[in-house]
Amino acid sequence: MPLHRTAAIISQGDEIVLGQTLDTNSKWLAERLMERGVLPVEHVSLPDDQAALVATFRRLAGTVDLILCTGGLGPTDDDLTRAALAEAMNQPLVEDAEALAQIIAWYQGRGRPMPDLNRVQALRPAAASSIQNHHGTAPGLAARIGSADVFCIPGPPRELFPMFLNQIAPLVSPPPGVNVRTWTLHTIGMGESDVATKLAGSRMGNLMARASSPLVGTTASGGVVSVRLRATGDNPDAAIAEIVAEVKRLMGVFVFADGPGAAGHPHEAFPTAVIGAMRTHQRTLGVVESCTSGLLGSMLGDVPGASDVLMGGLITYANRVKTALAGVPESVLHAHGAVSAETAAAMAEGGLKALAVTDCLAITGVAGPGGGSDDKPVGTVWIAHAHKGSPTDVRRFNMAGDRRNIREWAARSAMTMLWTHLAGQPGVPLLRQPLPVQK
Amino acid sequence: MPLHRTAAIISQGDEIVLGQTLDTNSKWLAERLMERGVLPVEHVSLPDDQAALVATFRRLAGTVDLILCTGGLGPTDDDLTRAALAEAMNQPLVEDAEALAQIIAWYQGRGRPMPDLNRVQALRPAAASSIQNHHGTAPGLAARIGSADVFCIPGPPRELFPMFLNQIAPLVSPPPGVNVRTWTLHTIGMGESDVATKLAGSRMGNLMARASSPLVGTTASGGVVSVRLRATGDNPDAAIAEIVAEVKRLMGVFVFADGPGAAGHPHEAFPTAVIGAMRTHQRTLGVVESCTSGLLGSMLGDVPGASDVLMGGLITYANRVKTALAGVPESVLHAHGAVSAETAAAMAEGGLKALAVTDCLAITGVAGPGGGSDDKPVGTVWIAHAHKGSPTDVRRFNMAGDRRNIREWAARSAMTMLWTHLAGQPGVPLLRQPLPVQK
Repeated sequence: MPLHRTAAIISQGDEIVLGQTLDTNSKWLAERLMERGVLPVEHVSLPDDQAALVATFRRLAGTVDLILCTGGLGPTDDDLTRAALAEAMNQPLVEDAEALAQIIAWYQGRGRPMPDLNRVQALRPAAASSIQNHHGTAPGLAARIGSADVFCIPGPPRELFPMFLNQIAPLVSPPPGVNVRTWTLHTIGMGESDVATKLAGSRMGNLMARASSPLVGTTASGGVVSVRLRATGDNPDAAIAEIVAEVKRLMGVFVFADGPGAAGHPHEAFPTAVIGAMRTHQRTLGVVESCTSGLLGSMLGDVPGASDVLMGGLITYANRVKTALAGVPESVLHAHGAVSAETAAAMAEGGLKALAVTDCLAITGVAGPGGGSDDKPVGTVWIAHAHKGSPTDVRRFNMAGDRRNIREWAARSAMTMLWTHLAGQPGVPLLRQPLPVQK
Repeated sequence: MPLHRTAAIISQGDEIVLGQTLDTNSKWLAERLMERGVLPVEHVSLPDDQAALVATFRRLAGTVDLILCTGGLGPTDDDLTRAALAEAMNQPLVEDAEALAQIIAWYQGRGRPMPDLNRVQALRPAAASSIQNHHGTAPGLAARIGSADVFCIPGPPRELFPMFLNQIAPLVSPPPGVNVRTWTLHTIGMGESDVATKLAGSRMGNLMARASSPLVGTTASGGVVSVRLRATGDNPDAAIAEIVAEVKRLMGVFVFADGPGAAGHPHEAFPTAVIGAMRTHQRTLGVVESCTSGLLGSMLGDVPGASDVLMGGLITYANRVKTALAGVPESVLHAHGAVSAETAAAMAEGGLKALAVTDCLAITGVAGPGGGSDDKPVGTVWIAHAHKGSPTDVRRFNMAGDRRNIREWAARSAMTMLWTHLAGQPGVPLLRQPLPVQK
């Protein structure tokens, strides 16, 4: 068994390449390899095409140490992985007596005879070996092409997961001393280029320089910029810890979560952090939403246990609902309009009373596609944070994108105002906030 | 421009290859190519590694007619697509004056100067052209390597989707005479196996038989079962039309939208259909949400123009908010509990008055992971629909899955009750509704 420094992952099947099915197996396998110190360097998805699969096996066998191939091990005519592996190895297919007995036994255990069709699943290249499938009829395959180890695994996750974890992972051989560690820090309130500028200005040098170790990269998604670290070498934990501390020093209050691996989905991690901070401060929260129509409440309510912080909210699309339930004076609506600093503040302060909470966030804006004007174009959003006994914080944001994007940015920006307030930096300017106004 | 018979899709970024982020762009692009009669034959995911990207551009340019590459167009040092494309083309990078002006204007529109870092986004290979990004700072790139057309597209979906649909799709040239027609019918309220049984029992024979044309498949997602048709041959439109009519006959009220291609994302198409039906019936809608905490209002408010139907709502997590704002009598909460038919009905009827609407939907349930009991396990959800002058319709549902799944199913089930009511079949039993109760 050679050492496995690098790996490639093949997922096989028309339904994936034609876009009918989302491939989630490759991500799962990549995470499992990373945990073990093996570096995935390529994912490939191929159709039910034997020639393409043979060419890909041979190409990858020349560039990586380990190939994981999922799918194409079923009993039907479009399942071509067995034949392609044999061709890539220049080997005949032979029937594996033990694998056949296991398939027959699998059916017997379910009170059925094995359909003739399934007999092909016991075939393997002569120089390969079968891997028993305890959760289905398709055995896996273990083989070698050139200097690369190849494992073929059935595609259904409930067969793939246990076969990989119990039967293949023990055979994975990362080089001794190669320790790969990954860490992610999620930030909010800054743009990706602002984050990169901060990282470039570190007293340790440009943290994102491609040659540096740990490798540092950034990914932006819906207002969250995630800083990803990857370290290898003798003492990756220390290398990671040093950079994590420096990133936190550079980013300060804008880092809301961090941890090993992906540190959770950034969109879920942020409401979780906000609810956690509110709980720590023993605060209670209400929301009053116009253009987001419940999205902020929904994001917060997605967090398990949110109900001890989030008391409730008002969705105030119609102006008469703003007046009747949130107590926004008709005179304010008349004088300043529904999308204004004054209305946002009145919504938040009205929600504070109506919902009997310590903190209330209010959002009013133009989500589009219609409803924009010269002085209030689509994307104009006013957000207010009212806190018992403090002046209300009201800010204008200019959001970009379509209706859905504008609504999501608005909800996350409201949470960001609350987050920075709780972190003791209530006045810090935030992304997409060109014109801060303090009421 | 050559004919585009075959295509390959590259997704670029460490976060994908290392398993930190799930690649959903490649599936989306593959679907869009299929709709246009171009056959995707390979997806590849690569790390932030210029040499790997160059080698892959060159390899694929020798095997396919069209290459779509997503990601790696950001402003930071780990964004290597521009440089890799130039190297694969043997071309220098040059600054595109028009692209630079567009990036500067993009920032100006948001009241900020362009950070110096973003200037690199205006670079393109000398023989390539830039594609304006109307939703972000990263221009796309159009180029040719050998006989293959190459389009590089920013990775964030809100930038990728409009750039592909509006600026790249018009340049895609499928071979003439390749007639692929696809059509999708979205259904709600039935399970996938119920839909398959209906399709198998057609007077035209089993519509899902694999050899039949058009090919008929089903996909289930969050309560929506989509029936997908794909026809090729001399007269695919007539073949599609015949099956569409038969599916509608078989499914009746449960079909809520249909159209060519994917007929929109099913999760977005359903609220759009509900808002449209409410508008047709000149009704106004309110929502009162406990366990979904705004998700129903948010789904409805995602529909452009929803504000002429959706007047507002109440998020009533805390019992005191149910009483104070939705008028749920304390005696009802005390006698039956917050998760009960009586509380759901009182919430809907209270919302009808407080929000001054013709129809109100109310949801109360146990979304988990905590809070379940023997008689009200996690997944128990009561939904009520109150309509002025009619008896309130209250139903119990047993939802499955995690907190997020339960909340999404609950919101869609509430809309399904309203949809079937508006379609003139208010009593029809719905999926996951084991115990219909009429108050």
